Amino acid sequence: MGCVQSFRDLCDRPKNTNVRVSLPVVCFVWQTAMVILFGVFIRYNAESDVRWREFRRTNNISSDIENDFYFRYPSFQDVHVMVFVGFGFLMTFLKRYSFGAVGFNFLIAAFGLQWALLMQGWFSSLDTDGKIKIGVENLINADFCVAGCLIAYGAVLGKVSPVQLLVLTLFGITLYAVEEYIILSIIHARDAGGSMVIHTFGAYYGLAISWMLYRPNLEQSSRLQGSVYHSDVFAMIGTLFLWMFWPSFNSALTDHGDGQHRAVINTYLSLASTVLTSVAVSSLFQKQGKLDMVHIQNATLAGGVAVGTAAEFMLMPYGSLIVGFFCGIISTLGYIYLTPFLEKHLKIQDTCGVHNLHAMPGVIGGVVGAITAAAATETVYGKEGLINTFDFDGDFKGTTPSRQGAMQAAALCVALVFGIGGGIFVGSILRLPIWGDPADEDCFDDQFYWEIRD
Amino acid sequence: MGCVQSFRDLCDRPKNTNVRVSLPVVCFVWQTAMVILFGVFIRYNAESDVRWREFRRTNNISSDIENDFYFRYPSFQDVHVMVFVGFGFLMTFLKRYSFGAVGFNFLIAAFGLQWALLMQGWFSSLDTDGKIKIGVENLINADFCVAGCLIAYGAVLGKVSPVQLLVLTLFGITLYAVEEYIILSIIHARDAGGSMVIHTFGAYYGLAISWMLYRPNLEQSSRLQGSVYHSDVFAMIGTLFLWMFWPSFNSALTDHGDGQHRAVINTYLSLASTVLTSVAVSSLFQKQGKLDMVHIQNATLAGGVAVGTAAEFMLMPYGSLIVGFFCGIISTLGYIYLTPFLEKHLKIQDTCGVHNLHAMPGVIGGVVGAITAAAATETVYGKEGLINTFDFDGDFKGTTPSRQGAMQAAALCVALVFGIGGGIFVGSILRLPIWGDPADEDCFDDQFYWEIRD
Amino acid sequence: MGCVQSFRDLCDRPKNTNVRVSLPVVCFVWQTAMVILFGVFIRYNAESDVRWREFRRTNNISSDIENDFYFRYPSFQDVHVMVFVGFGFLMTFLKRYSFGAVGFNFLIAAFGLQWALLMQGWFSSLDTDGKIKIGVENLINADFCVAGCLIAYGAVLGKVSPVQLLVLTLFGITLYAVEEYIILSIIHARDAGGSMVIHTFGAYYGLAISWMLYRPNLEQSSRLQGSVYHSDVFAMIGTLFLWMFWPSFNSALTDHGDGQHRAVINTYLSLASTVLTSVAVSSLFQKQGKLDMVHIQNATLAGGVAVGTAAEFMLMPYGSLIVGFFCGIISTLGYIYLTPFLEKHLKIQDTCGVHNLHAMPGVIGGVVGAITAAAATETVYGKEGLINTFDFDGDFKGTTPSRQGAMQAAALCVALVFGIGGGIFVGSILRLPIWGDPADEDCFDDQFYWEIRD
Repeated sequence: MGCVQSFRDLCDRPKNTNVRVSLPVVCFVWQTAMVILFGVFIRYNAESDVRWREFRRTNNISSDIENDFYFRYPSFQDVHVMVFVGFGFLMTFLKRYSFGAVGFNFLIAAFGLQWALLMQGWFSSLDTDGKIKIGVENLINADFCVAGCLIAYGAVLGKVSPVQLLVLTLFGITLYAVEEYIILSIIHARDAGGSMVIHTFGAYYGLAISWMLYRPNLEQSSRLQGSVYHSDVFAMIGTLFLWMFWPSFNSALTDHGDGQHRAVINTYLSLASTVLTSVAVSSLFQKQGKLDMVHIQNATLAGGVAVGTAAEFMLMPYGSLIVGFFCGIISTLGYIYLTPFLEKHLKIQDTCGVHNLHAMPGVIGGVVGAITAAAATETVYGKEGLINTFDFDGDFKGTTPSRQGAMQAAALCVALVFGIGGGIFVGSILRLPIWGDPADEDCFDDQFYWEIRD
Repeated sequence: MGCVQSFRDLCDRPKNTNVRVSLPVVCFVWQTAMVILFGVFIRYNAESDVRWREFRRTNNISSDIENDFYFRYPSFQDVHVMVFVGFGFLMTFLKRYSFGAVGFNFLIAAFGLQWALLMQGWFSSLDTDGKIKIGVENLINADFCVAGCLIAYGAVLGKVSPVQLLVLTLFGITLYAVEEYIILSIIHARDAGGSMVIHTFGAYYGLAISWMLYRPNLEQSSRLQGSVYHSDVFAMIGTLFLWMFWPSFNSALTDHGDGQHRAVINTYLSLASTVLTSVAVSSLFQKQGKLDMVHIQNATLAGGVAVGTAAEFMLMPYGSLIVGFFCGIISTLGYIYLTPFLEKHLKIQDTCGVHNLHAMPGVIGGVVGAITAAAATETVYGKEGLINTFDFDGDFKGTTPSRQGAMQAAALCVALVFGIGGGIFVGSILRLPIWGDPADEDCFDDQFYWEIRD
Repeated sequence: MGCVQSFRDLCDRPKNTNVRVSLPVVCFVWQTAMVILFGVFIRYNAESDVRWREFRRTNNISSDIENDFYFRYPSFQDVHVMVFVGFGFLMTFLKRYSFGAVGFNFLIAAFGLQWALLMQGWFSSLDTDGKIKIGVENLINADFCVAGCLIAYGAVLGKVSPVQLLVLTLFGITLYAVEEYIILSIIHARDAGGSMVIHTFGAYYGLAISWMLYRPNLEQSSRLQGSVYHSDVFAMIGTLFLWMFWPSFNSALTDHGDGQHRAVINTYLSLASTVLTSVAVSSLFQKQGKLDMVHIQNATLAGGVAVGTAAEFMLMPYGSLIVGFFCGIISTLGYIYLTPFLEKHLKIQDTCGVHNLHAMPGVIGGVVGAITAAAATETVYGKEGLINTFDFDGDFKGTTPSRQGAMQAAALCVALVFGIGGGIFVGSILRLPIWGDPADEDCFDDQFYWEIRD
């Protein structure tokens, strides 16, 4: 950097990225709060407590292998990999923001999962003694909750400070827990893989924040808003771990037995189908038919999002392929046409294109879920199957497939409202000039938050 | 590139790598065909269908944990990682073909697994109602089938277009399904980890194609036929995930209980042994005793291939070590002597050295399987053990260990014939000048099929 | 390199890194020894032997799913990934030692696990027929044992030859097996995740070796003793796989049911807490509040180490958070202050800072284990819980929580003594001028042991 540039930096820089006070303070305050709140509220549940053997005898459980741990732990670990390696590495594609991608992803996920255990616990695992009792299912739910905030991070990648991200996560987890409670426990919608609860909410939450934080002069850092060869290969690590483990994501919390089994099959197939149509559209719309790594890294995952709600339903294998087929097309076209349109005309700057990967496929997933629920018949499911799959009362009192379909549609609206409304609210907080976010010309650059040695 | 070079390019280039029409067309046509065929043929099986609870009661299955899902899903996910990350990243070692390695691997695996579900389903999972009923075992089988084609890809890496790869995969899966049916269902050979069915077939299929597509002037792209420092580190991601999860690969479809348990132990040991002898030979044959990354990335895996057939047998822990011991030596020597020999004298250009990693160890695995099967005694196995391990009839009618050994040897021949014969056939199709493959001087270069930004 | 430099190299180089004889010889001799010893000693155990079905009937085991394989295999694979990808990639952070990091890690782990199966087998799995009977639990134990040596490797990374590493591993495994036997079987201490047995021992073993091999002129290779941008991203692969799978590590060998379940929860929480305090301290002590990748890569893992011993106890979720909270602080401060101090004043050169990541947190873990064991009450555990968790005799004959606490403390001392004493002994062997280690100016440089092509 020459003298002129340095001087200009000193004079013009409107923002100060020094977070030496704010970041440690926020981390310490929040982690201390977690310790206190966990001390007051969180305990082991019957299956992770040392008194499990008594519980086994009392409840006539024949073997340790019936502990929910063995039904869910392999899926949990896959989800855990998606959250930390999947999302983290997917965002390393920028040439000089890989530390921020994988490092801040790590930070906010580690905070978010603690806050999620509390928020979700208050809503769904509060015991009669006022304690939240946790087991492996709560860990999965916490990871899911975190995923919503990581999706939102994708929209603002490179343009915010770590302190802003921690605020985004604090509010995001809170909003998620309320939204999830309304959708799953009040409306009684089903959403196995979170097309609505996680993806629609998370994506619109991030897009609304990005809209509130619109940077008219972001082209000043356009030199860094792209990839280099090896950063694209790093991003493929994220893509592939997300892609491979998505069947575990969509099946992690479904019913034991056929529920988990079927969710895996549907997701596996939908994702396979998406890859081919993403490649087709990517090739079709580039000169010389060359493929674009952005599409391969992202659009190929849309099928997993879109099959999330219906993964546990009798979607049928061909139904999964169809969902994936169209999502690959829509998502890739989104990257080609919609992302530039959103930036130019709606002032939404979406660094990772979460609108194409999570928002649109999430909405599609909600709609597919509503339709397939409404179309469920006793012929296909059997009476018992309907009751189990949709948690209907035994005598179908007041709940019918068509009513369930309406509830699914209502749930989608709730997710949208919480995402957009919450994002506008949080975005307005994040506009305060106290968070240490970078100037327009300093976006997408690790050097402002990381010691760089080369 | 200077003017002279550009001019030469314009005049001389015999090939056009534009796949803007062919690639989207092939992807759309094949994915559409999959949707239709899945609609007609594929349904959930009893364990993934919503009527599983009825099935449980009818068949007196005491718990959801007895669903095959819980026996096989962790192994399935490990296999899935091997197919997409393992094979994908192993091939990223070339300095400018990492996108093609990991991206085309992704594309053909995603297509191949769909086609494999159909092909294998027609042969082995066709129900009386004319539908193929699928569960987790079919997903594992589909991933296995795909692995055969990915091995073949290793032989032609960097020298073919994505359209050719899709054709290679379409035929490869088809041939595989027929070969597998003959070996497993007609000959009644055992091949838990696919030394014959997957590795021998896949490697010779790829080598025969490479022979048919021989490029006499390939040295024109020799500048790109090597690695750089970080591409070798990327490749180690592939190596290690293959190495670590190989015990899951060889045990994914073996018998519940001791079958899976034993296959894991045998594979774990064989692979450990291979590492030491690969390192020894690599060091011994390089000046100054330096290690060659090519050997560490590839030869260390040969023990997993070679123990594939016999992994479920009573090979004994030391038997596994011995198999790995020799395969590490043979495979490394193959890279040092045989690969150059094959290229120079047999006109087989084998980019990843699949002859050393899959072909030779696969054949060794078939032979080890035949010998250990023939040598099986009632003293070691017990009568029940013999019956279960080799699927003998209860009264040994017509099947004895020595006959089983002969059948195993016959199976190896079938794999060889299908691999070589199929490769020659498919190679002759791929020689048609319509597939958009690169010119000799453009091989191993991502820029012809990918948008490159740096 | 200019002429002057080359000439100086020829004259001054005191060491010869040629391992063309020694490396192959050691590999072949040791692998041959393994084959022989396995032939004499190692057999399948009841659950991996083909006679499992008989065993099932005899022992009235109702289902194949009760085979220990299904309780432990998913955890085993996670541990396996930690050992090969986690440790391997964590050490790739140096700009030109990534091959050595991931490659030698691979080599010594593959050898170590074989030797560990024998050593640990003689102490704990020796059957009445003089054979060691192995199953999945032995594989996990072998991987654990190897982890101790890989931690030691972290202290000497870049400064030793592969032959030295094989010697370090041979003795390290031997010492580990003895130490483990004393701690677990004689003292009857508990150490689920190996805070003492693995981390304290391994770290002090490595540090003592590094002290014995002190290089006063190591600054001659200081140009290579740092990272470049992408090597830091590679290291994050190691960090994240260690971080994500640490719950599997600490739970892999705990009791079926609640034991595994609780160990997972405690580790998950401790690690999450560590991330926030590591980030806080890293930011607080750097100018401008920038984060240092070294801290993010390493200190974030300290919580997993420190919760190792107590992970299976009723540590309570908030207890886990507290452990992680302090370890994040201590470990990061260690990187900032203690590592330079150790090098300058105690002549301990600790390449990866294993003192901060394994030694201090390991000791803390031992202390936390002793305190929580001593504080265990029948109110919290129930009588049955106390007996199961601490393996007390049914009538508490001679064993009480406070006595158990004392035993835990004694165990910690044993680990320290074995680590430091063993390290000094092995270090004195490794000082012999026959091992092909690099000169001070050639440290941290792959080119002396690897063919480098760029």
